[in-house]
This record gives sequence, C-alpha cells and structure tokens, in this order.
Amino acid sequence: MAKKKMILDLDTGVDDALAIAYAVAAPDVDLIGIVASYGNNLLDVCAENSLKLLELLGQTDVPVYKGLPHASTSDHFEVMQVSLDIHGNNGIGDVDLPKPQRAVEKLSGVDFYIQAAHQYGQDLIIIPTGPMTNLAAALEKDPEIADLIGNVTFMGGALTVEGNVTDVAEANINQDAKAANTVLTSSLPLTMVGLDVTLRTLLTKQETAQWRALGTKAGQAYADLTDFYIDAYYNLGIDKNGCALHDPLAVGVSLDPSFVQTLSLFMKVIYDDHNYARTIGDKDKLNDPNPNVKVAITVDKERYLATFMNYLTQLFKEH
Amino acid sequence: MAKKKMILDLDTGVDDALAIAYAVAAPDVDLIGIVASYGNNLLDVCAENSLKLLELLGQTDVPVYKGLPHASTSDHFEVMQVSLDIHGNNGIGDVDLPKPQRAVEKLSGVDFYIQAAHQYGQDLIIIPTGPMTNLAAALEKDPEIADLIGNVTFMGGALTVEGNVTDVAEANINQDAKAANTVLTSSLPLTMVGLDVTLRTLLTKQETAQWRALGTKAGQAYADLTDFYIDAYYNLGIDKNGCALHDPLAVGVSLDPSFVQTLSLFMKVIYDDHNYARTIGDKDKLNDPNPNVKVAITVDKERYLATFMNYLTQLFKEH
Repeated sequence: MAKKKMILDLDTGVDDALAIAYAVAAPDVDLIGIVASYGNNLLDVCAENSLKLLELLGQTDVPVYKGLPHASTSDHFEVMQVSLDIHGNNGIGDVDLPKPQRAVEKLSGVDFYIQAAHQYGQDLIIIPTGPMTNLAAALEKDPEIADLIGNVTFMGGALTVEGNVTDVAEANINQDAKAANTVLTSSLPLTMVGLDVTLRTLLTKQETAQWRALGTKAGQAYADLTDFYIDAYYNLGIDKNGCALHDPLAVGVSLDPSFVQTLSLFMKVIYDDHNYARTIGDKDKLNDPNPNVKVAITVDKERYLATFMNYLTQLFKEH
Repeated sequence: MAKKKMILDLDTGVDDALAIAYAVAAPDVDLIGIVASYGNNLLDVCAENSLKLLELLGQTDVPVYKGLPHASTSDHFEVMQVSLDIHGNNGIGDVDLPKPQRAVEKLSGVDFYIQAAHQYGQDLIIIPTGPMTNLAAALEKDPEIADLIGNVTFMGGALTVEGNVTDVAEANINQDAKAANTVLTSSLPLTMVGLDVTLRTLLTKQETAQWRALGTKAGQAYADLTDFYIDAYYNLGIDKNGCALHDPLAVGVSLDPSFVQTLSLFMKVIYDDHNYARTIGDKDKLNDPNPNVKVAITVDKERYLATFMNYLTQLFKEH
C-alpha cells in the first residue's frame, strides 16, 4: 500500500490526542510531522502535549514543529476558560504524562509546510484541527503551495448547524477567522469536517472502558483523558450522550472520504465584527464551476466508529 | 395517473406567476386552490394577480382564497421598494392584464387549508412560496392538520449560502420569521427549496423568446413579465446571467423530488433581533431520529429547466 504523507496541525487537546492515535494507527499513513498551534492551550503546551503523546505511542521518529503563538490579527493569545474546562488545565484531560525526551524541531512549522509541499506535492495531506494560522501564513509566504498540496482536510466550521462559540462561530475558526478565510478562499483542494458531522459522531465510556481494560500505559492514559472530555461534555451540557470525535474524524475522512457525504461549494469565512467566524457558501460563486471545498454534511457514524475503535484499540494494545 | 391535490400559497409576484403556470401545466396536478398572501405586493394585489393569471391560462375553475394581510408579529404591511423593483409596481412585471371576471372566495385561506387537510389528508401537497403566515395560522387554529397533510414544499430560506435580504435572511422568511418557525418546527413533512438551489436555477431571455414566438396571449404576457424580472436581476446586480426560478422550482420539486438532493435536518428559524430570519439546523436535535425537514442542497438544473420549458411552452401554446 502506498502510504499517504500526512501532516497534522494540532492544538493538542483531547480530541487532537485521539487524532494523533488515529493517524499513527492507520495502516495507510506516513505521519511525517506534527505542526503545533495555539488554541486549546498555549502553543508551548500544545507542542509538548504532542511530544508526550508520540512518546507514549512509541512514535519518537515523528518530528514536531512549532507554529505561530497567536492569531494573525492579534499580538497575543490567552486560553479561553471553556477550553480548560473541556480539555483540562494541561490540555490532555489533566492526565500526567512523563516530560518528553525530545524537543521540537528548529525548523518552523510554517517553513516545514512549505518544504513538505514542494517535496511531496500531491501525495501530501494536511489535517489542521485547530486555528488555521500556520497554514495561512505558509500560503502567504509561498502562494505556490496552494497548487502543490494534494488535500487539506480540516476540522472546523459549521455550515448547516449553529456554532459552538457563538450562534455562527465554531471554536477553531473563531480563533483566527481571517486566517481561515485565507485558507478557504485559496485554490487548495479542501474538505471541511465541521460541527455538521462531528457532533453526530460520539464516543462513550463504553468504548474507553475497552482501552482501560487492555492494561497498557497508552490504553490507560487515553481512557483517562477521554473520560475527562466525556465528563466535560456532560457537565457543560454540550452532549449528555458522549463526546464528539471532532479531530479524529477529520483524519478518518482524509483517508476514507466515503465516511461522509459532502456538498461542494466555494466557501468564505466572515471576519468582520458582524457574525465573526461564520463559515458559509459564497452566493456569488454558486454557479461557478469546480468549487474548491467539499463540506461534509452527513456521516456514516457506525462505520467510522468501528474503524476508529479497531485502529485505536489495536494501537493501545501494543503500547 | 392519480393527480396530486395541490394548494399554492402565493404572493404573486413574477416567479409566483411562473409557479402557477407550472402547476397548471403539470399533468399530475389537480390544483384545488390558491391561497393569497401579502409579500411581493399587498394581499389584495397578489390575490388579484392570481385571478388574472388563472384567467389568462383558462383556469377559471381554480378558486382563490384570501390569506392574512400582514405578518403574525405586526399589525400592518408595507411593500418593500426592492419588491417593486424586482416584480414591478403591479407585482407582475408591469404587464397589464384584464381585470379578472371572478372574485376571491368567501372562505378564508386559513379555513380552506384546514378544510382541505381534513378532506384530502396525505393526498394534499401545499406549496407556500411567500411568507408562511397563512399556514402557521392554520396550524395554530387546528394543530391536528400537521399530521394530516401529505407534504409541504416551500420556497424560502437559505442554509448553505447567505440570505438575499440580510446576510442570513431570505426574503420570504424575512416577512414573518415567527410564522416560518412555527411551520418548520411542526410535525409537518417539509421540503425546503431555498436560495441554496433556486439561485442555481436560472432562466434567460433565450427561453422567454420561445414563449413570445408562440404568438399567443399567454406566451406574450409571460415573456414580458419574465423579461421584466430578468432585467431587474441584471440591473440590481442579483445575477447578470438570468433570473432565479425560485417559486416554480418548489412546485417542480414537490412533484419530482429527484430534481434535488436533500439533507434531512430538524430546522429552526431565528425570530429575535440577532440574525432575524436565519434558517438553520437545530444542533441540539442533530442525533434525533426522523428529522422533519428535507433541505434541498443541490439541483439537476438542466433536467429541471427542460421540464419547466416543456410544460410552460406547451401551456402557453394553448392560451
């Protein structure tokens, strides 16, 4: 099997942790690097979380690159209280993992994007599951990469349902709507995995109990950090029936697009005050050919969840 | 062929005029009545336009019932200037048709709905292409009808693209968002034909020239009133490539749902000040079974347009 070259762009985060596990476990992925973002926590915390999780999963050959520390339209970043409530103060459900042996790479995340795009071209898949600040910066530094990269499947936005930060804004897009608009209105081939489908794809403690029962370090840690997230979903009233598999669904869809039905549109992201961070189809381009964004609108959640559990449980068994 | 019992609820209107022609021409429709609404013009003007057009098309056995004169949340109605700009001061492209021989019925539009729902039940299709004030009032007067009526296919709303009155509001929903919410959150089986698909379905002067060339009264009148609308679309910058077939598309979809792809959702209509008249999927019901609204998201415009032209040209040939 020809493996796909994948870069994850993560603000790690509980569901980002699940995305790492999915990418590591999937047999058809060559995870060539993780770009760290601010978002669910500070940039340095998110970068360190990725390093910790890669070590937990025995993936010490996957480099982590530091992205930008704040939105393109700001000069600082503060973690929102709700992010801490959902992901824990340390970003990974307050689970205590060993300090990583490795450090982040010297190359910046933005330059890694540009280098990888030129090196791998159409074989490269990029999965941003946090703010799109890094990818937008790479596009601005080297616009040519928009026509090189094979696919960008991002977790973010909401087209057919309301947002989770405001009635129009989804959390990732809300961090840097201008950067998201730069990405969505580029010529990149994009797949949007937004709240439209991620809120339909729930994990429960029935599943995490299977990981804990494995008796491995990874099984235990992942069960604990995911249970924190499931509890937060319950306690904050986001969903009483489980936690949404936001970020790992994006990884799954990038590898097997048949998990979702999509609607092809030219999209835009509103980044002025009124309806900030709304992701919506561009009415003026509704009859233009070849829309660049495939928006996921329905999901085969049973089949996805079966694949997700198959991959992750096997991985955790070994670590 | 068992004909479907159809009620049109129109604020006639150029595209409403096209909807009447489609319903009259379609071989599988028994048009049992038109309920008049305010909207594109005043209630009395819209009612008279329907009577005029029915006479033009030789349909003097189709009764017209008067609906309500203003929104459920208001005590008056004024025509918006943009409605006059798009549909002409008389609502039908300033085309001068003879004063109708007939008058509206004594029975109110609301009571006609209730009577028809009990009489025809699942055989009844209702097509609101204006405000939903009348249907909401019928539901409030006799809630039982929600479970009797076979299908409601309405033109209105925008799910995947911005609105045409504000960035979130489509014109019909914007007239009475509270009434629209009453209808959309009822147990009625609904199909939403919104800007998502109607803005993709354009008619040009190439087509209207075919009607004019027929040399009939109806062909001439329909060519003229539609050309007014096409010109308005051009001059107002709505679309330079033709006019949207909003209302007749709803009629077509009600008869042949395969013209569109749909997304099934529980929908709601926002009717407070912030984002008034937005039509959006209900996030809290995303995992509930059996959503009541099928939202049209793509359209086979070539096949629809061919059917539309086939029906209307044949009809205009005879009148």
